[in-house]
Amino acid sequence: MPTVTVTRRLTFNAAHRVHNPSLSEAENQALFGKCNNPNWHGHNYVLEVSVKGEISERTGYVMDLGALKRLVETEVIQEVDHRNMNVEVAFMKGVIPTTENIIVGIWKRIAPHVAPARLVRLRLWETENNFAEYEGE
Amino acid sequence: MPTVTVTRRLTFNAAHRVHNPSLSEAENQALFGKCNNPNWHGHNYVLEVSVKGEISERTGYVMDLGALKRLVETEVIQEVDHRNMNVEVAFMKGVIPTTENIIVGIWKRIAPHVAPARLVRLRLWETENNFAEYEGE
Amino acid sequence: MPTVTVTRRLTFNAAHRVHNPSLSEAENQALFGKCNNPNWHGHNYVLEVSVKGEISERTGYVMDLGALKRLVETEVIQEVDHRNMNVEVAFMKGVIPTTENIIVGIWKRIAPHVAPARLVRLRLWETENNFAEYEGE
Amino acid sequence: MPTVTVTRRLTFNAAHRVHNPSLSEAENQALFGKCNNPNWHGHNYVLEVSVKGEISERTGYVMDLGALKRLVETEVIQEVDHRNMNVEVAFMKGVIPTTENIIVGIWKRIAPHVAPARLVRLRLWETENNFAEYEGE
Amino acid sequence: MPTVTVTRRLTFNAAHRVHNPSLSEAENQALFGKCNNPNWHGHNYVLEVSVKGEISERTGYVMDLGALKRLVETEVIQEVDHRNMNVEVAFMKGVIPTTENIIVGIWKRIAPHVAPARLVRLRLWETENNFAEYEGE
Amino acid sequence: MPTVTVTRRLTFNAAHRVHNPSLSEAENQALFGKCNNPNWHGHNYVLEVSVKGEISERTGYVMDLGALKRLVETEVIQEVDHRNMNVEVAFMKGVIPTTENIIVGIWKRIAPHVAPARLVRLRLWETENNFAEYEGE
Repeated sequence: MPTVTVTRRLTFNAAHRVHNPSLSEAENQALFGKCNNPNWHGHNYVLEVSVKGEISERTGYVMDLGALKRLVETEVIQEVDHRNMNVEVAFMKGVIPTTENIIVGIWKRIAPHVAPARLVRLRLWETENNFAEYEGE
Repeated sequence: MPTVTVTRRLTFNAAHRVHNPSLSEAENQALFGKCNNPNWHGHNYVLEVSVKGEISERTGYVMDLGALKRLVETEVIQEVDHRNMNVEVAFMKGVIPTTENIIVGIWKRIAPHVAPARLVRLRLWETENNFAEYEGE
Repeated sequence: MPTVTVTRRLTFNAAHRVHNPSLSEAENQALFGKCNNPNWHGHNYVLEVSVKGEISERTGYVMDLGALKRLVETEVIQEVDHRNMNVEVAFMKGVIPTTENIIVGIWKRIAPHVAPARLVRLRLWETENNFAEYEGE
Repeated sequence: MPTVTVTRRLTFNAAHRVHNPSLSEAENQALFGKCNNPNWHGHNYVLEVSVKGEISERTGYVMDLGALKRLVETEVIQEVDHRNMNVEVAFMKGVIPTTENIIVGIWKRIAPHVAPARLVRLRLWETENNFAEYEGE
Repeated sequence: MPTVTVTRRLTFNAAHRVHNPSLSEAENQALFGKCNNPNWHGHNYVLEVSVKGEISERTGYVMDLGALKRLVETEVIQEVDHRNMNVEVAFMKGVIPTTENIIVGIWKRIAPHVAPARLVRLRLWETENNFAEYEGE
Repeated sequence: MPTVTVTRRLTFNAAHRVHNPSLSEAENQALFGKCNNPNWHGHNYVLEVSVKGEISERTGYVMDLGALKRLVETEVIQEVDHRNMNVEVAFMKGVIPTTENIIVGIWKRIAPHVAPARLVRLRLWETENNFAEYEGE
């Protein structure tokens, strides 16, 4: 059977501050500018989760996208939606909550649960002008 | 000369918490749910500013949209972008930072400055699924 | 308190056929062309529901958009989503399921339930290039 | 029968220069900046044409949007698509090709042809951040 | 000459039912839920067709996108637009009309016709939240 | 550290004419049709610039997207925005200004400046229905 990639798009809203606690306030300000605001700012994040696999002859699906949606809601969305990425999200402990680090954290939450398909790409939009992609490397 | 409405779209990011300080924590939680999170959450706001007036024979413009952009950046965007709507924005003092109250606050910042055109509509998207409109009533 | 309009956007998918059963097949074909296909076609509809009212001093809301969402899901979405608009939707009985008639049918389902706000506008996108608006007239 | 507004969206591409030939080069440069470039620049315009009327009991339509599309293609799109708005468009002769003046010119081309519906609104996007609206006033 | 990928985006509307005729009604209902509705539902599909090749020195094109558009309209769009994917589309006979199977069927219709460029990717959006990609594997 | 791709989206407007000066007018007209209009036409281009690299432990970034934005504005946007691609853009001299050739020209302007990250993909939308991608091959 042919191998196809299917993608489900989900959204969440969160607060964050781009801040490295091992650096001084002046260094943080120089590196991150307004993104370092100690009173936080926030975003409407858009997450695209892509899994790849053979089409099932029984279902015509690579993976039931309803099941993928519920999985991502359980593993990711309920952890981050309407949350503060710096102080409330267990899987972000110890890393700076940039789009890059968030997407790597999300990968670890989803990748173990999509077999026999494989997680092959995550895309995370922070704003309408910026996004990150991760393929598990 | 014909009367036309012209609109300029701008964006900003901010943190907020939907919270009424005159109510108890339990009342706030019942009214606002996850939007009441004391650790904040945030949004990519999209603002559409619409002014109406006669077309100038000299310029072909109702209002120079570059000038309108600079005005909104000075009066609104630099006050709210990468800010906390509850604690850092002077024009939001004393009101709950819902989309409704933010848009009324923005109106007061822009309306005095667009003559001889008139501010006729603001639209503020909080997420891709929710927006508010205000016409100054 | 200021009067603001707030809008909630929802989506549904449905099959339909543009067909007037009181006309002949030839007349239907001449009027509606490929939209008259007896084997049906379908759309991803996008519905924008706008209610207007005074901002509540207690909540900062015109209307809780979570409540509006649940109302529209109950009154409209569960009636039409993944349905055939010609044969399965009670509120469409006896009318041709054009975007115009669907939006009027949806209005009657929502308008009684949003007081003290007022339903002031529905917009229904049938495709990315076509939409209808209704204000209850 | 209820009165509904239906909208058809169309696109075209064109070159233009914002220039008032009755002013000096220095005045044009001061007023219009880079938009006055004598070598032209251009845009992907998006036009939304809205007509309002009673729903026909026979068709369920306010107006056949396929017919509206063909009308706008004939009266507007073939005049402006892949054209230079300053030098090639008969209906723009003698006015500065700003979004405001283009939309008024388009109105005159479409308004006579949509009866018994009425043309009630044109919206013209010049970029994703700027648009004009005209209601025939 | 450099090798570039060019993409043309097209849309079509269709009805379908996710149904495996070799399974019982109960199995179909358990697997596909509301997508199995025997009265059909439908979608506005968005198709992105990507071909890759060297830039022609004569034309500056990898492939004339107008020619690609006409090819996809002839081979695909006129077969599926305003159609029922289960009962009217020859190239879908014998497979469940999921997005995955539709995209594989479309590949076979387009791939033979784009030389000297090569078809390298199809993307098919079923809704604004779901899409499939196929690279011919 | 994980390897992530980050993308910044920017826009510009320009006029152009698809024209090969080594061919006759008749050949140009046959090849390019309305895109060959000697009076020019134009587009709102959307450019997506993607760079790939390891996440920095110090910043959480692959590359500061603010720095990437300023780089692209200096190297590309100020060269092409509100310009005529055929006659005013130094890096387009001697090639036909198709989307394919523009994207290759932009690659050469950006690639030398993003180390230690690597430029891995450019995507350039000419209209909402057409785009080109280049990966430096």
